[in-house]
Amino acid sequence: MMDFNKEYKLYLESVEEWITVHLKAQDPLRKSIYDAMNYSLTAGGKRLRPVLSLAVCSMLNGDEVAVLPFACAIELIHTYSLIHDDLPCMDNDDFRRGKPTSHKVFGEAMAVLSGDGLLNLAFEKMLEETIRDADCYYRAKTARLIADAAGTNGMILGQVIDLESENKDISYDRLCDMHQKKTGALIRAAVLAPAELFNAPEEIKKALESYARAIGLAFQIKDDILDFEGDSAVLGKTTGKDSKNHKSTFVTLLGREKARELLKASVDQALESIKPLGDTAFLDQMAVYIAEREK
Amino acid sequence: MMDFNKEYKLYLESVEEWITVHLKAQDPLRKSIYDAMNYSLTAGGKRLRPVLSLAVCSMLNGDEVAVLPFACAIELIHTYSLIHDDLPCMDNDDFRRGKPTSHKVFGEAMAVLSGDGLLNLAFEKMLEETIRDADCYYRAKTARLIADAAGTNGMILGQVIDLESENKDISYDRLCDMHQKKTGALIRAAVLAPAELFNAPEEIKKALESYARAIGLAFQIKDDILDFEGDSAVLGKTTGKDSKNHKSTFVTLLGREKARELLKASVDQALESIKPLGDTAFLDQMAVYIAEREK
Repeated sequence: MMDFNKEYKLYLESVEEWITVHLKAQDPLRKSIYDAMNYSLTAGGKRLRPVLSLAVCSMLNGDEVAVLPFACAIELIHTYSLIHDDLPCMDNDDFRRGKPTSHKVFGEAMAVLSGDGLLNLAFEKMLEETIRDADCYYRAKTARLIADAAGTNGMILGQVIDLESENKDISYDRLCDMHQKKTGALIRAAVLAPAELFNAPEEIKKALESYARAIGLAFQIKDDILDFEGDSAVLGKTTGKDSKNHKSTFVTLLGREKARELLKASVDQALESIKPLGDTAFLDQMAVYIAEREK
Repeated sequence: MMDFNKEYKLYLESVEEWITVHLKAQDPLRKSIYDAMNYSLTAGGKRLRPVLSLAVCSMLNGDEVAVLPFACAIELIHTYSLIHDDLPCMDNDDFRRGKPTSHKVFGEAMAVLSGDGLLNLAFEKMLEETIRDADCYYRAKTARLIADAAGTNGMILGQVIDLESENKDISYDRLCDMHQKKTGALIRAAVLAPAELFNAPEEIKKALESYARAIGLAFQIKDDILDFEGDSAVLGKTTGKDSKNHKSTFVTLLGREKARELLKASVDQALESIKPLGDTAFLDQMAVYIAEREK
């Protein structure tokens, strides 16, 4: 049987190494912005998205080196979204993963710029990889897939819906819509990026799409449950925030028991989706991990 | 003799049409973020950067339709940078081009998101164009050129240097460095993008590079002179801000007369650079326009 933790750690090491190599300031002039970007980027995230990309790559017998720039670009985009999300004018969070948020350490102006810098850097790195040689169509298509997921059809739209839902009772459908955009879109891109890059057959893309949708939903339900009952010391951020901010969540809309049932159903759906794809042991356990994690 | 204003207007119309077509919200869910993005994007800017791209395209006998997505992506990037720059935590500007700034109209959170949205959209549009067909190497290279100019080696780095220079006496070299990054990098990308897209010979790229550097410098010197002596009603923004904010400018560092001399020398340098390139009448007058504009 495969050792999930060991394999996760191997993927993680590849991601960390890429980040170390590619996030170096080239001269003293760039030091302060790179310091701010690195602070948020190395704040102890789970690297869920790039690990998903590398795991799908491995399942497709693809070249990890080819996927890494895209996988890590998604992590840069995820990190920038957290920096901007934490700003006083947005969620006004002082802590993230147990550390003071970017604007608390570097000031608001620098936090805005380091977020902008990370988003831009994601595209710099993807395009640098894209033009590695002239045969670049599928690399460009992969960058396009990620750009769409991150923008005003995806993650940013989700943040707008979130913003406009504050202090409002929203419907279950709208809640699903919001999360599918806000967190689902980037998770979907992480899962599909290797399939796009290696031009996998449509039926594989469809299976992965269904898997991604299911783990995206599971991820968000679990997040809401953790916020409701979690331990802020373990989570490294304030808990009970959703109810304090009158945010609609899967727990407030469905109740705790129904939310747990839906979480389980999502994991089952994820496993079912990729059954036809061969050796999916790691991706199966990823779905379980997402539902059972304590932070 | 060519009619500069008439030709400028033709380029402008192409840009406006592209923006109208590509900045439509596809459904009610997207309306609010597109409203915010369009507000800033249609606030009456000069469209200097995309017009430069189209003019260089025309000089190279290139296809305008092929250049437009890249030219307009640069305008999207320029616009996002203004939205974020105007935020209370940055320059805290209430007016831009005679209209209330984005955060004054839509609130700070939406201003942050609409800036993020425009930056991301620039890459979505460039990549959509890049994968138009499989023969996409030079389109990808053009997107890469623009990405580099916009990021932590270019525009964002310039903003960081600007931020760190506040209330400090900075050297002339540092001032030049800052502006070369903050405004120069994107102007350079606008001028070079068509040359990259059409794979122009190195000597043409070099001439254009020198031209871009000269008009970038002229643009900034003129900006400083306008801030020093300009009419806020004409400019549509507060004047005299630089001295009030103890910002070093070409006027404060060189004095008004020397600044005017350097402005003239920059225009001469621009004209000289592109002399070998054939019909440069419009680009010549662009350089003059940049130095003589009243806003």
